[in-house]
Amino acid sequence: MTLLIERVLASDELANIRSALATAQFVDGRDSAGGAAREQKHVLQLDRAGDQQRDVGQTVAKALLRHPKLQTAALPKSVRHPTINRYEPGMFYGPHLDAPLMRGSVTTRCDLSVTVFLSHPAEYEGGELLIAGERAPISLKAAAGDAVLYDSGAVHQVTPVTSGIRLVAVTWLQSLIRDGAQRKLVFELGESIAQLEAQNASAETLLKLRATHHNLMRMWLES
Amino acid sequence: MTLLIERVLASDELANIRSALATAQFVDGRDSAGGAAREQKHVLQLDRAGDQQRDVGQTVAKALLRHPKLQTAALPKSVRHPTINRYEPGMFYGPHLDAPLMRGSVTTRCDLSVTVFLSHPAEYEGGELLIAGERAPISLKAAAGDAVLYDSGAVHQVTPVTSGIRLVAVTWLQSLIRDGAQRKLVFELGESIAQLEAQNASAETLLKLRATHHNLMRMWLES
Amino acid sequence: MTLLIERVLASDELANIRSALATAQFVDGRDSAGGAAREQKHVLQLDRAGDQQRDVGQTVAKALLRHPKLQTAALPKSVRHPTINRYEPGMFYGPHLDAPLMRGSVTTRCDLSVTVFLSHPAEYEGGELLIAGERAPISLKAAAGDAVLYDSGAVHQVTPVTSGIRLVAVTWLQSLIRDGAQRKLVFELGESIAQLEAQNASAETLLKLRATHHNLMRMWLES
Amino acid sequence: MTLLIERVLASDELANIRSALATAQFVDGRDSAGGAAREQKHVLQLDRAGDQQRDVGQTVAKALLRHPKLQTAALPKSVRHPTINRYEPGMFYGPHLDAPLMRGSVTTRCDLSVTVFLSHPAEYEGGELLIAGERAPISLKAAAGDAVLYDSGAVHQVTPVTSGIRLVAVTWLQSLIRDGAQRKLVFELGESIAQLEAQNASAETLLKLRATHHNLMRMWLES
Amino acid sequence: MTLLIERVLASDELANIRSALATAQFVDGRDSAGGAAREQKHVLQLDRAGDQQRDVGQTVAKALLRHPKLQTAALPKSVRHPTINRYEPGMFYGPHLDAPLMRGSVTTRCDLSVTVFLSHPAEYEGGELLIAGERAPISLKAAAGDAVLYDSGAVHQVTPVTSGIRLVAVTWLQSLIRDGAQRKLVFELGESIAQLEAQNASAETLLKLRATHHNLMRMWLES
Amino acid sequence: MTLLIERVLASDELANIRSALATAQFVDGRDSAGGAAREQKHVLQLDRAGDQQRDVGQTVAKALLRHPKLQTAALPKSVRHPTINRYEPGMFYGPHLDAPLMRGSVTTRCDLSVTVFLSHPAEYEGGELLIAGERAPISLKAAAGDAVLYDSGAVHQVTPVTSGIRLVAVTWLQSLIRDGAQRKLVFELGESIAQLEAQNASAETLLKLRATHHNLMRMWLES
Repeated sequence: MTLLIERVLASDELANIRSALATAQFVDGRDSAGGAAREQKHVLQLDRAGDQQRDVGQTVAKALLRHPKLQTAALPKSVRHPTINRYEPGMFYGPHLDAPLMRGSVTTRCDLSVTVFLSHPAEYEGGELLIAGERAPISLKAAAGDAVLYDSGAVHQVTPVTSGIRLVAVTWLQSLIRDGAQRKLVFELGESIAQLEAQNASAETLLKLRATHHNLMRMWLES
Repeated sequence: MTLLIERVLASDELANIRSALATAQFVDGRDSAGGAAREQKHVLQLDRAGDQQRDVGQTVAKALLRHPKLQTAALPKSVRHPTINRYEPGMFYGPHLDAPLMRGSVTTRCDLSVTVFLSHPAEYEGGELLIAGERAPISLKAAAGDAVLYDSGAVHQVTPVTSGIRLVAVTWLQSLIRDGAQRKLVFELGESIAQLEAQNASAETLLKLRATHHNLMRMWLES
Repeated sequence: MTLLIERVLASDELANIRSALATAQFVDGRDSAGGAAREQKHVLQLDRAGDQQRDVGQTVAKALLRHPKLQTAALPKSVRHPTINRYEPGMFYGPHLDAPLMRGSVTTRCDLSVTVFLSHPAEYEGGELLIAGERAPISLKAAAGDAVLYDSGAVHQVTPVTSGIRLVAVTWLQSLIRDGAQRKLVFELGESIAQLEAQNASAETLLKLRATHHNLMRMWLES
Repeated sequence: MTLLIERVLASDELANIRSALATAQFVDGRDSAGGAAREQKHVLQLDRAGDQQRDVGQTVAKALLRHPKLQTAALPKSVRHPTINRYEPGMFYGPHLDAPLMRGSVTTRCDLSVTVFLSHPAEYEGGELLIAGERAPISLKAAAGDAVLYDSGAVHQVTPVTSGIRLVAVTWLQSLIRDGAQRKLVFELGESIAQLEAQNASAETLLKLRATHHNLMRMWLES
Repeated sequence: MTLLIERVLASDELANIRSALATAQFVDGRDSAGGAAREQKHVLQLDRAGDQQRDVGQTVAKALLRHPKLQTAALPKSVRHPTINRYEPGMFYGPHLDAPLMRGSVTTRCDLSVTVFLSHPAEYEGGELLIAGERAPISLKAAAGDAVLYDSGAVHQVTPVTSGIRLVAVTWLQSLIRDGAQRKLVFELGESIAQLEAQNASAETLLKLRATHHNLMRMWLES
Repeated sequence: MTLLIERVLASDELANIRSALATAQFVDGRDSAGGAAREQKHVLQLDRAGDQQRDVGQTVAKALLRHPKLQTAALPKSVRHPTINRYEPGMFYGPHLDAPLMRGSVTTRCDLSVTVFLSHPAEYEGGELLIAGERAPISLKAAAGDAVLYDSGAVHQVTPVTSGIRLVAVTWLQSLIRDGAQRKLVFELGESIAQLEAQNASAETLLKLRATHHNLMRMWLES
């Protein structure tokens, strides 16, 4: 599943974050990458020890969790504290995939990765998020405040920034439904039911469909 | 799942079968029961070597397979050749469950058992089919030509016939969807879609629901 | 699985709860129902902000968790804080099913619903708990202090109370074994082993059966 | 999985088929579509009763089954006899998905659909095969003799042909590995092993990787 | 599962086979090995085109299928036609694992491998069957007429024969229960029930245990 | 999986633990065994209420969790606080298996059992850890500071100590991958990848194999 989720951050949240990051301390991002991904990572990263990392991360995590589309499409069990990346000209993140398991106070199986865009597309050139797809990679560059949700297990990369600055928050989440095909099916059945509520479907049929929806969730949810 | 399926046999089929069985040779049914079920079986059975067994069995099997409700509720992969049982006064089949595996030219995992009633309820007393249920056994005695479908793994019995003759055809089938909860869910989603086709649901929503229905079947069908 | 669990509350616990509820503040229960269930809910509910809700809920939750039959039949992973409902004449809860997922400090997949009866059956008329069953709904009205455990995914309802007051505590639990058929099988194998311990079964066979029981639990438990 | 498989038909096979179809009898294709797909189908179809249908179908089925890439990517358990479609100007096949189950002498769970192109792209305009994808539909128009393999459960369509004639053979297959994500993983591990055989990997490591590959297949193959 | 099955072949069957093989034509066995196993195979093999291969193979296959222990421990769905191998001094089969999938008139997922010993242990030196095990390889050399059943996915080898002739029939089977841990659990529960039938267990408890056994089989059998 | 993990405890940790245990209070171990295991347990156990139990347990648990081989082979989700057992001459623990579920502040599904040896093999005679295996029990007696990891569901025992003192810490852990065959496959694929990193495998192939490894973990991890 690759999904654009628009307006995750409210405009004042976005403004505050951008203002905080304007003067923040960034360090070499390789220090936080593990194993083979480390060699591919050529990007600055907000200092993890600083207050800004904590505050910006919390704002972004809260904004993601409250968004209805992320709730129903991703069914988050837990979200990692976001990392803030800064790509200056020449920086990039080569082809890699994200770790399936992240430890800490909570252990997370990373099912889905999220990139929240903090820069406007006009503020930089290059810096495309390229995600391996069915027939060709999907290339993404969303508006500041928007997020892209994608499978952590898909090979992806950020192409070199050729001018300007690309700021993003990235994070990972474990879904209550592990299997992508099952999660998609539950999401789409929920959408169908919402459509039918506006189409004169009978109460009896709607109750029956909700039973199907709920019982599929019971079969597949890992809480 | 315990399901009554009405009018499996057409009235001429029923009449022909009853006429053929009136003069047929029945033998001790214990010979065909395996293991522990053998001690519980006190019933006559149509001689397996005779032509009537072959002809009556084929008529019943065909009638079951062509019935739309059996098709959608049971999703049969294969049906065993039916056995014809005759309960005379004093005869019964004590509590037992049916074998999970039957070998022969085809190997069948017996998911569902079927009793096709060949006698009218008024023709005998006693002879209730009792199936272990959630809170209390379900007691069944259906019209001649009707069938009852139930889980082969539920403990069941036929209580003693106290007067008259109880004729039934019994058989077993393997479903394309092994798990009863999954099979029920697919069946009910199909029913909901049929109801919506008569309720002004939009073509777009119906296509989406059919995709859900089809893809659930793909996840669960064993062909 | 629909299961009656007798004497969940000790008589002094029941007396204390009834005494506390006699003077407690009840509010419109619709406020706590989500989505489609809301329209079906016509019942008063103990004010969630009050101390009585906390105390009565804790007494009921503890009593459920300590009951051996609930432990082995439901294998609870977590139990939600109970809700206290008061049905006055004319009140009812129409056909609905319970949400599969409840959020809060703990996220719960609601596998099983529990109704703990706080009124004696003679204290009210109507107010039957009707649960959709195999062939016909199961109708339940248990003694004060008893509980009924049933699948959260079964459509159920409470018929209108026609006289008197019906007080119940209702709650939901996530089981360590998600699938009802697997949970039932483990429960029944445990019962068989307990029976065999009183039947001269050999130590060697009992060790072997316990290995089967334990290893089935290992295959299916989600902790 | 959407996969282009090049040169499925040898040039003489393609020539023979095109020559046979030049004079063959085509009929209204709606007769063979079931349920909702019927309304979407506006295309001619080779008469099923004719010899050409049998001969062309067999040639195409054999060509598919012998192709190494189809073998490893699709792991076919069985392939249906192909249908030959002819799109004349104005004809199209609106959005639909293919049935999950096809009966006949063999029962097939349709996991994957195949379109074998019999016309050269230059011979017609329009007639794109559009398959619903992650972010946007995938549009395909392959060379004569090539095939496209795609999930039967993806909504797909053929856009109207605006000039010329579009001839295709379409068929469906059941895979030995039902789940698309598992099938893809086994396919890619096989590709990795083939690459390593040319990269000085040690015999010991290759044996270990092959054990992983074989044992994954054992876990997932349904034969 | 590594299991010795004694006396698979009756003494007259063994004698006939040994006599037939004494004058039979053997060819280089590498021709029938696929992929990487080919390099490890240094053994003669009974000519596949000859009558002896057909007759000996059928005798061995029938003997395996009729053996009660193989029936209950392996739950065979199908058995491949056996191959007859002859190891002369210096011959061996290096470390390899057997293919997960064998095609032909029947497609077989090879879950279990079987070696039927046709030579007496005293007739050759070396020629141990070594199967990778938990802590150390298991080394096996059984009596003529006995068989060893082992997981096809375990790396195994035959060490060089240093003197004499080692004749074996080898074959592969697909089990009705794919997963080895599930198959073992069903097998052991069946053994426990058989033991309890001789230990004064009550009919009620035995019925309950058989229900557990049958319903586990229903959950896991792939027919 | 039965696995020896060497040097779990550093020499100073081992010395400190041995010194603390030399003067510690041990009690009858039967008090902590449940159900049928209780009768088999004839061993002393460090008093659970004492400080030494807490301190020694924490040292052992930390040492286990930091060991790379335990991390990759067992993929621990949680480890129980260890129990310290002291076998004096004549003491033993008869055949038993460990409980599948342990409650407390954390609920643990016991997938794997661990014995950490605190005595040198030369310090006692007898006291073998015997674990039921494929063909014969595995007998183990490791160096002080080493650990043995084994399936909690395998029947195991400690044979009588005939002289000297056998001190061990025993504990249980829940793995992030429940099924032993899946866990082993992920472990071995990780080992293969580590070997290939030293064998000139191409970066492209390594990325592809890591994707396979990560995505298998995503399919199977329960976090």
